[in-house]
Amino acid sequence: MFHQRISTDLAAEIWSTVKRSGCLAEDVKSFVVHDLGRMRDRLQNLQSVFPRQSRHTLAIKANPLVEILRVAVGCGVGLEAASIEEVELAVAAGCPAEQIIFDSPAKTRDEIQHCLKLGVHLNVDNFDELERIGSLYQTVASASTVGLRINPEVGVGTIAITSVGGTGSKFGVSVSKDHDRILDAFVKYDWLVGLHAHVGSQGCALDLLCRSAARLQQLRREIVEHTGRRIPLVNIGGGLPAAYDDAIEPPSPSLYAEQLAIHAPDLMGDEVTLMTEFGRAVQAGCGVAFSRVEYVRRQSQRVVGDLTDSDHSMAVIHLGADMFLRPVYRPDDWKHEYALLDASGLLKTQDSRQTTIAGPLCFAGDILTREALMPEPRVGDWIVIRDCGAYTLSMWSRHCSRGLPPVVGYDASNQSVSLLHRGETPEDVVRFWSR
Amino acid sequence: MFHQRISTDLAAEIWSTVKRSGCLAEDVKSFVVHDLGRMRDRLQNLQSVFPRQSRHTLAIKANPLVEILRVAVGCGVGLEAASIEEVELAVAAGCPAEQIIFDSPAKTRDEIQHCLKLGVHLNVDNFDELERIGSLYQTVASASTVGLRINPEVGVGTIAITSVGGTGSKFGVSVSKDHDRILDAFVKYDWLVGLHAHVGSQGCALDLLCRSAARLQQLRREIVEHTGRRIPLVNIGGGLPAAYDDAIEPPSPSLYAEQLAIHAPDLMGDEVTLMTEFGRAVQAGCGVAFSRVEYVRRQSQRVVGDLTDSDHSMAVIHLGADMFLRPVYRPDDWKHEYALLDASGLLKTQDSRQTTIAGPLCFAGDILTREALMPEPRVGDWIVIRDCGAYTLSMWSRHCSRGLPPVVGYDASNQSVSLLHRGETPEDVVRFWSR
Ligand SMILES: Cc1ncc(COP(=O)(O)O)c(C=O)c1O
Ligand SMILES: Cc1ncc(COP(=O)(O)O)c(C=O)c1O
Repeated sequence: MFHQRISTDLAAEIWSTVKRSGCLAEDVKSFVVHDLGRMRDRLQNLQSVFPRQSRHTLAIKANPLVEILRVAVGCGVGLEAASIEEVELAVAAGCPAEQIIFDSPAKTRDEIQHCLKLGVHLNVDNFDELERIGSLYQTVASASTVGLRINPEVGVGTIAITSVGGTGSKFGVSVSKDHDRILDAFVKYDWLVGLHAHVGSQGCALDLLCRSAARLQQLRREIVEHTGRRIPLVNIGGGLPAAYDDAIEPPSPSLYAEQLAIHAPDLMGDEVTLMTEFGRAVQAGCGVAFSRVEYVRRQSQRVVGDLTDSDHSMAVIHLGADMFLRPVYRPDDWKHEYALLDASGLLKTQDSRQTTIAGPLCFAGDILTREALMPEPRVGDWIVIRDCGAYTLSMWSRHCSRGLPPVVGYDASNQSVSLLHRGETPEDVVRFWSR
Repeated sequence: MFHQRISTDLAAEIWSTVKRSGCLAEDVKSFVVHDLGRMRDRLQNLQSVFPRQSRHTLAIKANPLVEILRVAVGCGVGLEAASIEEVELAVAAGCPAEQIIFDSPAKTRDEIQHCLKLGVHLNVDNFDELERIGSLYQTVASASTVGLRINPEVGVGTIAITSVGGTGSKFGVSVSKDHDRILDAFVKYDWLVGLHAHVGSQGCALDLLCRSAARLQQLRREIVEHTGRRIPLVNIGGGLPAAYDDAIEPPSPSLYAEQLAIHAPDLMGDEVTLMTEFGRAVQAGCGVAFSRVEYVRRQSQRVVGDLTDSDHSMAVIHLGADMFLRPVYRPDDWKHEYALLDASGLLKTQDSRQTTIAGPLCFAGDILTREALMPEPRVGDWIVIRDCGAYTLSMWSRHCSRGLPPVVGYDASNQSVSLLHRGETPEDVVRFWSR
C-alpha cells in the first residue's frame, strides 16, 4: 500500500480536477501535481511502523517546494538539508530547528556556526569538519546535537552515481580504516552523540540498507563500551527505493522496520532514538507531471537495433532535460512511465505503440524516452509523466532558461486543489540572470 | 589566436585582481569570471572574417547573463534565443528586435504571436509551425523575417547528444524526404525568406559544417529557380568547436569562412545575408571558475583500472553537478582542465599527480573529475576550472538548492573588474521555491 502509485486513471482525474479548478492559466503549457494526501499518508505510515521515539526527516533535496515542506512539518516530520540554502528552506517552512538536520560534505565555518546558533542537528562528514565544530562549539552557545557520518562500506547498489557505501566514497569516515579515530573522537567530544549512514538513493536493496544499520549498531556498541557514554542518536539515512513501475514492488517501511528489528535490534530499542532521512520513497510517487503536446513529428526512419521502424511518432512537449535531467543524461538508470490524455483529458489507451517523447530544449539529446508505450499522440493531447515527485523538479536546470512550471497540490480526500508554486514568468527568468 | 585560452598564469592573475578589487565578499566560496575583453575581440574577429553584410548572433543558451548579453549587443551582434524566456533576455539586454532570432522546436501560438509583434526573426522548425505562422501572419502587422530550419542530413559529430544533423533528428525538415514540400512552402508563403541549419554543438568537424552549408546553398538555388524569388537569408547556425585543451586547436572562424567560400560560395556572396549563431566557440574560453577547497579527503584506496593508487587526494569544492552537469553526468564527452592556486592566489605547479575534484552535492556521483593533474591540494587553496564560459553556468541546476555563484566581468586591457551577477543568497533560493 505504501508504494501505491498514482494510476493513469487517477492521473486523468487529477488533470480534470486541476483544469476545472481554474487555478492555472487557461493556456498553461505544462504543470506538476503533488498529491499531498498521499504524502501525508506515507509520512504517517513511516511514523507508525518505526519506534515511537524515532525522529523522521524528509530529504529536502527530493522536493524543496516550501509549501510541500510545510506539509511534512505539519505531520510532525523534520527536514534534512543538504546545503545551507536548504536549512533556510526548512526554516521558511516552519520547521523547528531541532528537527532540522544539516548534511553536506562541504560545510563552511560560517555555515557550521550559523547552524550551531540555530540549534540544528549536524551530521559531520569527516574529521576536519569535526575539528572545526570542536573549535566553534566553544565559542557559541548551542543546542545542536551532532552525529558522525560513517561509511559502512557495505558495497554499492545498482546505480553507481547515487551509491555512497563503497570504499573510497566521498562521504563519511570509514568504519574499518578510521575505526580507532572514531572511538577517539567520541572520547574527545562530548557533544558527539550520534552516528549517521546513508548508503545511496534508489537501487539499494533492503539487505544493503540493513547491513549498513547493523554496522552502525556494532560501532555504537563499541563506542558505548569504549567511552562509557550513552550514544542516543542513530541515523540510518534515506535510500528506501521508490516504485517507478508495477513490476517491482520495493520494500515497504514496515518491512524495513521488521528487518531492522532482526538485523539491528538496538536501533529499534528504547536506548536509541532512530533518525531517518527518506526522500524518494515518500515523494516520487506523489508527483505527476503533465505537458501539452505542442508538435508531433513523424519519424519515417528510426533505427532500433537492426530494425527500421518505419512509422514512428515523436511528441514534442514542454518539459525536457530542464526537469528530467537524469532520465535524459542517464536513461539506462532513470526511467519514468508515460500515458496520454486527449485534449479534453480522457485517457487514450487504444493501439499503443512505441513513441518518442522529446523535450523543448535546443539540443539533440533532449529526449525523455524513445520507448513510451502509448497511442498515436496528436497536437493538443497531454502527456502524463508518472512518479516525478522526487529528484525531478528539485534538480531544475536553467538550460535554455525556460521557467519552472506551476505546481499544484492535490488532496483526494476532499478533491481540493491548491497552488504550491505559481511557476516562473519570463520576467522571473530575466531577473534570475540579471545583476 | 581566436581560440586562445585563458592560461593558468592569467587565471591566477585574474583571481588576484578580482580578490583585490573588493567586489566580492571576503568569504566568497566560489566565483566565475568572464573575460569581456576577450569576448569582444572574438566577436570582432567574427565580424571581420565573414562578409560585411552578415548578421551574427550569439547563442544565449551558452551564457544567458544579461550583462554579458549587453556586451554582445554593444558590439553590434544579435542574440539567438532558444525559448521565449531567452527572447525576453535579449530584449532586457537592449537587443533590437530585428537582431533577435527565435529558435525553438516547441514554439506555442502565443509565443509566435508575441514574436511576430516584436518583429523578431523566426526560424521555423517544422511544417505544422509554418502553418501556424501562416495563419498568425495574417492577423498581426509584423516586421518579422522567417527562415525554415533544414536538417541537412550530413551525419552526426562525435557527441551524439549535441549532434542534430543525423536522419530522424528532432529538429528541422528533411532536405531529402521533405524536398518538394519545402519548395511548395516557399511558393505559398512570401514571408518565408530564409534557410537555417545547425548541425550540433562541439564535436562537429569543419567538414561537417561546410557540407551542411553546401546543402543549404544547393537547396537555396533550387528554391530560387522554382519560385523566381530572392531568398536573402541563410543561417548556418553555430557549432564551431571550442578549445578545451591545448592539444587540439579547433578551426578558427577565418578558416571556416575560407572553407565556406570554397564549398558554399553563394553564402559568402552579395546576394545572401549570412546569419550565424555561435555560442560555445566565442564564450567557453572566456570563462574561468574558481572555488575554494573546503576539505581534502585522503582516499587511501582508489582503484584505477587494475592499479591501486594508494595515496590519492580528493578536493571537495563548492561547484559540482549544479554548474558542471555535463562533465558530471557525461564525463566521457565533456571535460575541463583544472589548476591549483594556494590561499594567496599563487599557482602551485610542483609535483603534480592525479587528483579527484568532488562537488558539494549530496550524491556520490558528484565528481567533476578523477584525473585532474595538480599538486597536493590543501584546505583553503583554490581550484581553477578552465574554459567554462559556455554551457556550464547557463545549465545551472537546483539540485541541493545551492545558490548561483557571483560572476565577475574582467577586462585585461584596463584591468577592470565589474560585477555581472551578485550571486544568489539563501533568501533568493527560498524565494525561488516559494509559492
Ligand atoms: C545524506 C542523505 N540523506 C538522505 C537522502 C535521501 O535519499 P532518498 O531520497 O533516496 O531516500 C540523501 C539522498 O541522496 C542523502 O544524501
Ligand atoms: C539552433 C542553435 N543555434 C546555435 C547554437 C549554438 O551552438 P554552439 O554554441 O555550439 O555554437 C545551438 C546550440 O546547440 C542551437 O541549437
